[in-house]
Amino acid sequence: MSEALARLRAALGERVDTGAETVEAARADRSGFRSAGAPLAVVHAESVADVQTVLRIAHATGTPVVTRGAGTGLAGGANAGPGEIALSLRRMTRILEVSPDDLLAVVEPGILNGDLDAALAPHGLWWAPDPASRAISTVGGNIATGAGGLLCAKYGVVRDAVLALDVVLADGRLIRTGHRSVKGVTGLDLTALLIGSEGTLGVVVGATLKLRRRVAGAVCTLTALFPDVRSAAAASAAVTAAGVQPAIMELLDAASVAAISALLRVPDVAAGAAQLTIQTDGPAAAAEADTIARVLREAGGRVALTADPEEGERLLAFRRAMHPAMETLGTALIEDVSVPRSRMAEMFDEIERVAREHDVVIPTVAHAGDGNLHPNFVFDGAEVPERVWAAADDLFRAALRLGGTLTGEHGVGVLKRRWLADELGDDQWRLQRDIAHVFDPRGILNPGKVFTP
Amino acid sequence: MSEALARLRAALGERVDTGAETVEAARADRSGFRSAGAPLAVVHAESVADVQTVLRIAHATGTPVVTRGAGTGLAGGANAGPGEIALSLRRMTRILEVSPDDLLAVVEPGILNGDLDAALAPHGLWWAPDPASRAISTVGGNIATGAGGLLCAKYGVVRDAVLALDVVLADGRLIRTGHRSVKGVTGLDLTALLIGSEGTLGVVVGATLKLRRRVAGAVCTLTALFPDVRSAAAASAAVTAAGVQPAIMELLDAASVAAISALLRVPDVAAGAAQLTIQTDGPAAAAEADTIARVLREAGGRVALTADPEEGERLLAFRRAMHPAMETLGTALIEDVSVPRSRMAEMFDEIERVAREHDVVIPTVAHAGDGNLHPNFVFDGAEVPERVWAAADDLFRAALRLGGTLTGEHGVGVLKRRWLADELGDDQWRLQRDIAHVFDPRGILNPGKVFTP
Ligand SMILES: Cc1cc2nc3c(=O)[nH]c(=O)nc-3n(C[C@H](O)[C@H](O)[C@H](O)COP(=O)(O)OP(=O)(O)OC[C@H]3O[C@@H](n4cnc5c(N)ncnc54)[C@H](O)[C@@H]3O)c2cc1C
Ligand SMILES: Cc1cc2nc3c(=O)[nH]c(=O)nc-3n(C[C@H](O)[C@H](O)[C@H](O)COP(=O)(O)OP(=O)(O)OC[C@H]3O[C@@H](n4cnc5c(N)ncnc54)[C@H](O)[C@@H]3O)c2cc1C
Repeated sequence: MSEALARLRAALGERVDTGAETVEAARADRSGFRSAGAPLAVVHAESVADVQTVLRIAHATGTPVVTRGAGTGLAGGANAGPGEIALSLRRMTRILEVSPDDLLAVVEPGILNGDLDAALAPHGLWWAPDPASRAISTVGGNIATGAGGLLCAKYGVVRDAVLALDVVLADGRLIRTGHRSVKGVTGLDLTALLIGSEGTLGVVVGATLKLRRRVAGAVCTLTALFPDVRSAAAASAAVTAAGVQPAIMELLDAASVAAISALLRVPDVAAGAAQLTIQTDGPAAAAEADTIARVLREAGGRVALTADPEEGERLLAFRRAMHPAMETLGTALIEDVSVPRSRMAEMFDEIERVAREHDVVIPTVAHAGDGNLHPNFVFDGAEVPERVWAAADDLFRAALRLGGTLTGEHGVGVLKRRWLADELGDDQWRLQRDIAHVFDPRGILNPGKVFTP
Repeated sequence: MSEALARLRAALGERVDTGAETVEAARADRSGFRSAGAPLAVVHAESVADVQTVLRIAHATGTPVVTRGAGTGLAGGANAGPGEIALSLRRMTRILEVSPDDLLAVVEPGILNGDLDAALAPHGLWWAPDPASRAISTVGGNIATGAGGLLCAKYGVVRDAVLALDVVLADGRLIRTGHRSVKGVTGLDLTALLIGSEGTLGVVVGATLKLRRRVAGAVCTLTALFPDVRSAAAASAAVTAAGVQPAIMELLDAASVAAISALLRVPDVAAGAAQLTIQTDGPAAAAEADTIARVLREAGGRVALTADPEEGERLLAFRRAMHPAMETLGTALIEDVSVPRSRMAEMFDEIERVAREHDVVIPTVAHAGDGNLHPNFVFDGAEVPERVWAAADDLFRAALRLGGTLTGEHGVGVLKRRWLADELGDDQWRLQRDIAHVFDPRGILNPGKVFTP
């Protein structure tokens, strides 16, 4: 038994779990990637003090620590390997405070986003970031990845919804960044720096979240079919250009529509058609929906519009079936490029080209309101074949050429670390790595993630 | 002549300005502070290459560089002293791109916020951050201070409105942080880290700004008088609690109301009264104004409400006269604490206590929608007396006790560096300083600002 493991056991007893299944599960997240082998142990932290203990021991013994929320990440960031400690925060689920007056909540990191939402609802409050994985991912994981979601074009991403963080540093010390007040510019904005840092700078053990009031009133839902993905993309751009702000605006390309139709056993009404699903809310919901319907029709769309909540949920369910529909096709490498809204149609052209040239099927769904596309590279078997990597490489470079970015919301993890310097440039890449080094001089926090070793 | 100056002259000729008045002016901003003496020179950079040249020479010769926008800062951050180069960006005023489709603009840092606004208006676009100094401060300065403004409770602060930055590093290299897409989580968020870094991490030479569409429709304006500041603060909290979102919600205490009334020669209608000025906009402007009027009346306010733009502007003009009104009273040290909204009434109690115990007059205006207070410490003469510093110290500590922060929007500069570690804690203070050191290993970027030497 390694020294680290012995010391962990002595300090934390049963919370140090070396059960074969547990350590095996900690090798993977939902990216399709696995680490080279099982980690030393999974530590189930139950308190800030537990986390500090783990980090002190890890620091003293030079043992790598891979922090895990729910393991739903799509970049391999939470995957723990041989010789590493997997530090799970899933047991730290307390809500320490809800303040309707200050529109904030203080929570532990392991609470599921959906559980938090359920607890806030009776107060009429809401933490806006809503990744499609909200029912299964943790608030800490959402923060560590800088998660986005369906509603973020209107209501913001995680980066917009965190006031302060409690963070355990690599050597076990605890700092508190940010402030409870909505405004504040005291010193460097470490809260912002920690958001999206994927476990490389410190362990988030507490978060003061900026809440919103739940949006009252009617919600209107529209769907529109277009002959091809290019015209659907153009129509979504026209909606934005019309000055309305949908809460949700999702685009499904033809391959996605076909797969979902098959899964849900609904007739694939218009073969080859791409689809937009749009929702408006708030005081202008109805007026905005009317404007959008007009814009979509002018753009050649076949439009359905409803103000009925149940019917709306039914229309939206089609979009929500994307992930299960992909699973019926095979294994999917879910990609996550983001481009300026105006370049979205071009990006779809590039996806089509990449699919053709590399002979890969790439059904794509996009958060069209903010130019964030999720091409799903479908293949057989568990390992991503080289052919798919080559296609992904081609796709990333296309996104960068269009002024976009490698990852809109999923993060870099192990999946995209080899492209990171392409986007940042060598100087910025080194600067970022040197900043990480200040937080983590011994290199024990999620080593090999984000930055190539 | 120092080596640095000789090399600057050789490289940049006339853009290196050692005129007595120019260098004298670079000693101060609007904080009331001056540096110990005039800097070596003011360099009027006209291009990114000029900035790189200055930094290369400064780095090679170990000469400090103090970046200046318009010098309207209130923390002494832009004040350049003996042996330092003042690097002015006021000539870099070009708008390089405006994209209505992508709701972004790319600008040089020296453009005035107000000039940018005038240029965006014909496109129906708007950069939301609106410091009261927007007519006289630069976008680069707004970014470097993380500026806020009147509208920020509804429309966000600078931190929410920047997509990407071009930054010249301490040794003259140029990096580009962020991305043109609205979403992106590739690597560490250096854009966020640079916002509010007050010239200590790099020189912002270009910015890709996130724009909004100008808000169409009616604007409703309300004012309400309350018997005392506590009830006005409670009323503003009740407005927030009612779930409406004013675009502007400003609170003036009795001393401010009296001073402004005197300046504008309007009768000070209700001696001892505090005032709220509120504006609503957007599709629900009228409905929200009605709700607010009801809430204010229930809270004991004497309410005026108008949907007439001219009358609204007249009501707002009263609030806008705060700064000139303070100048009639003497010299003002303008403070900038921020507390959770629910603690605002208590913060006003503390201000009253501090004023009494230290025998200082402290008229206070607050951005009540976000708990950001500007107590104006009024005194005679040019130098801040010790008595005022003691009062300010007392006030800062009170704000921290209430869960607030030293500075909501003005920054740390030289003014608040001695309190910085009190708020951050020693561990975080050192971490922040070490991060600055990664950007600036020779310590030439605005040394002595933010962090105590
Ligand atoms: C079906 C499905 C749909 C999804 N939809 C979306 C979506 O719409 N938008 C989106 O953004 N993502 C989405 N995701 C991806 C994933 O759910 C998010 O990245 C989520 O934020 C991860 O949370 P988690 O708790 O599972 O974190 P994990 O996967 O456990 O960890 C993710 C990363 O964060 C680090 N980390 C976790 N917790 C902490 C902590 N407390 N302190 C420091 N570091 C920590 C880990 O080391 C790792 O690098 C989806 C995933 C699935 C499976
Ligand atoms: C009447 C009045 C009202 C005000 N109202 C507000 C308000 O409502 N909200 C608010 O937030 N502030 C307000 N201010 C303060 C001030 O206007 C802001 O801080 C503003 O953002 C400063 O811009 P500037 O161009 O004048 O910067 P400067 O004062 O020149 O510089 C400010 C700081 O930024 C650094 N800096 C400037 N440009 C750059 C750059 N390109 N790259 C790197 N560092 C740089 C400087 O080194 C310095 O540390 C007000 C000031 C006055 C006089």
